[in-house]
Amino acid sequence: MALSFPAGLAAQIAPYLPPASSSSPSSGHEDASRPFVTLTFATSLDASLALAPGVQTHLSGPLSKAMTHHLRAHHSAILVGVSTAVADDPGLNCRLEGADLARQPLPIVLDPHARWEVSENSRVVQTAKNGKGRAPIILTARDVVAKNDIHDDSSILQRQRLLEQYGGGYITVPARDGRFRWEDVLAALQRLGVRSVMVEGGGRVINSLLEEEQQGLVDAVVVTIAPTWLGQGGVVVSPQRTTTATATAGFVPPRLRDVTWVPMGEDVVVCGRL
Amino acid sequence: MALSFPAGLAAQIAPYLPPASSSSPSSGHEDASRPFVTLTFATSLDASLALAPGVQTHLSGPLSKAMTHHLRAHHSAILVGVSTAVADDPGLNCRLEGADLARQPLPIVLDPHARWEVSENSRVVQTAKNGKGRAPIILTARDVVAKNDIHDDSSILQRQRLLEQYGGGYITVPARDGRFRWEDVLAALQRLGVRSVMVEGGGRVINSLLEEEQQGLVDAVVVTIAPTWLGQGGVVVSPQRTTTATATAGFVPPRLRDVTWVPMGEDVVVCGRL
Repeated sequence: MALSFPAGLAAQIAPYLPPASSSSPSSGHEDASRPFVTLTFATSLDASLALAPGVQTHLSGPLSKAMTHHLRAHHSAILVGVSTAVADDPGLNCRLEGADLARQPLPIVLDPHARWEVSENSRVVQTAKNGKGRAPIILTARDVVAKNDIHDDSSILQRQRLLEQYGGGYITVPARDGRFRWEDVLAALQRLGVRSVMVEGGGRVINSLLEEEQQGLVDAVVVTIAPTWLGQGGVVVSPQRTTTATATAGFVPPRLRDVTWVPMGEDVVVCGRL
Repeated sequence: MALSFPAGLAAQIAPYLPPASSSSPSSGHEDASRPFVTLTFATSLDASLALAPGVQTHLSGPLSKAMTHHLRAHHSAILVGVSTAVADDPGLNCRLEGADLARQPLPIVLDPHARWEVSENSRVVQTAKNGKGRAPIILTARDVVAKNDIHDDSSILQRQRLLEQYGGGYITVPARDGRFRWEDVLAALQRLGVRSVMVEGGGRVINSLLEEEQQGLVDAVVVTIAPTWLGQGGVVVSPQRTTTATATAGFVPPRLRDVTWVPMGEDVVVCGRL
């Protein structure tokens, strides 16, 4: 079902969107050497994304859900970690009313070990097949694909062929200890022509962008909060404190600047910059 | 310095306040056998009350701080746990402009083991001495005081005499394994003539009221959220899941009803009922 997002709410979100073209002046993003990065997710009042790892949990109400799709329409790519892809089987497209293929964002999946067994039945592939979205680009670690120590060739090659059929595929990015550095991920996206990317999840991906060393990479933050407590044991958004900050005395917690709170039905959305 | 709270914001909070007198009709509180209970606290975006146990952390901006004092003016008591009393040395009074002694709430401290070494120098005692607030009533466990196994008589008797000098004192409440049951706490407050109580902290006190079995005791919830992440290791508000709810499949997370989000400066305040 197509969603619609009220213009009054869209106006309140507008200052936090990436610039419409790379040539237009931008308040938060002066650095054309990498894509504009928006960090966006929905949590409970106790900062959980989900009841437990791998358990898809619906937190957003209809308005904040529509907002997510509005944001997708204004970014050239959506990025999620492999755990989200595996757990949620997401469509990663924009389901706003009148969203044509030209406005569909490119789905990016961070999958260093090529764990995600994307297939014809994956929702994102079905969506691409039906012309309602684009096929994903999966970022894997150079060494994993080269060494081929986890999956057999034929499986990855098969997936590669499937994705290429719809315009997607695998690209390799340097990794250390099986993890990407954000600088390398953004450089890879830049080479793909991605001007703006919306980082949507999951917990590990979000927390790593909130860590002190990465905050400079985030241009805008858009967080939905639902008025519920998921209770202890959920997948929590809360950054690791840096080593120097472990002593609470010297720790200056990351705080949003240019904050706007927008009530949306039962939820609230907070927009800001790091 | 006296605070003031804008009338426009006060109007948005008004539906969640306890009834002005016990005879007036109340939307959320039909049960005159116990006080009206408001649960209120301020957290970061990652649901932390403080950077670490015992570390006082200022989260609220000036408007949401003024709101807390506005709420205090509309309750007959404020309740905190002993850890908060020890860590923060709080004044537990209403510092709104024009708040006279008649409108000052009664401070209640849950202190089963009589750990809090309240003295002439405690801020709450100084505040009472200066006519800016009331002296606290400290709830201790019957068995602890009777057995007198933790503190020597003279110390507790001395504190008792100090508090009585300003109209405060100790009262005993039944406890099991050194913990109170909320029903017993509220019954004790009822006997003191408390018609409405604002539960302000700390983490253990708040989390216990959010647990499934206690939710029926809470009439209104008012939570301030500040746009910052305190990071892992903070004092988190997140209820324990009940045994039956540990399996995520059957777990229905507690959710606020009648939700109102009120942006206040950099913060947001969410009001609702459990």
